[in-house]
Amino acid sequence: MAKERIILGIDPGTNIMGYGLILQKANKISLIALGILKLGKYDTHALKLKKIFERTLSLIEEYKPDEMALEAPFFGKNVQSMLKLGRAQGVAMAAGLYKDLPIFEYSPKKIKQSITGNGNASKEQVAGMLKSLVQFEAIPKHLDATDGLAAAVCHFFQGDNTTSGKSYSSWGSFLKDNPDRKG
Amino acid sequence: MAKERIILGIDPGTNIMGYGLILQKANKISLIALGILKLGKYDTHALKLKKIFERTLSLIEEYKPDEMALEAPFFGKNVQSMLKLGRAQGVAMAAGLYKDLPIFEYSPKKIKQSITGNGNASKEQVAGMLKSLVQFEAIPKHLDATDGLAAAVCHFFQGDNTTSGKSYSSWGSFLKDNPDRKG
Repeated sequence: MAKERIILGIDPGTNIMGYGLILQKANKISLIALGILKLGKYDTHALKLKKIFERTLSLIEEYKPDEMALEAPFFGKNVQSMLKLGRAQGVAMAAGLYKDLPIFEYSPKKIKQSITGNGNASKEQVAGMLKSLVQFEAIPKHLDATDGLAAAVCHFFQGDNTTSGKSYSSWGSFLKDNPDRKG
Repeated sequence: MAKERIILGIDPGTNIMGYGLILQKANKISLIALGILKLGKYDTHALKLKKIFERTLSLIEEYKPDEMALEAPFFGKNVQSMLKLGRAQGVAMAAGLYKDLPIFEYSPKKIKQSITGNGNASKEQVAGMLKSLVQFEAIPKHLDATDGLAAAVCHFFQGDNTTSGKSYSSWGSFLKDNPDRKG
């Protein structure tokens, strides 16, 4: 049966990090927090990574989530953008790992599929569905905030899978389950 | 003039992380520590990242380095390997950023160039030169340990550059200085 838990959802990017926290009680979810961290104003790549780490760590310390869900594309335009994205993911994950949070990763397609039933849904469609699922007042100006929230809600929907041990925290299992994601 | 400082060099990989710590007094350097963290034995990607973060953090707490130097390739075989490498770099950097260490990045070619005078030197040549530079007893079985050390020694050789504000902690400046490294 579903338990009570807090899920932190993160969409770590190199320009904007989106995050959302939801509280699950039995089979109901409600919104705890939703926000973004703008990174464009920081001059260096290292400083952006520092800010991602610090914000993620402070979210964990403030809200004490039980699990962390990450939006994690496994493909991209070029090796350099993937290295940068990997670093952004890495520092966010480091904060979770440091605090002993189990981390679950979901591809953007899986998240869209879970929330809207359509793996190719637009950001607006995902945001609209999230609005009715967790009741927040307005669709945020920056849809990246809802991307973080979407990862958390997607993880909620996997409820039975995660308790049966299926987890995307293993790179190998992700690739096995997503053979079309290679390269 | 050169100051007294401790430099932590890290070569974060997804199978082995190499590290070396050197003490600089005036223009002399000596070895403080040299080692590797084997990651192959850990089942999941997340656990490997956790171990990289923890080891880097414990090295910082134990030896209190003033600066951190990272061997960071900016290119690679494919986007997936770069995402994994980026994550490994990200968690190592997170430990340094968390402890407010300035982080400097050097490409493998730059490191080889600094230490041997040849950007295409073999690992064995780099290790041999390091052996005479910092006096360690035997070339370690795993050359990855000397890769971490090499990053630290490379950073030492940049001495005047770093005090004049030139730093590879900025992604933008790295690309500007290394236009051949794109894509």
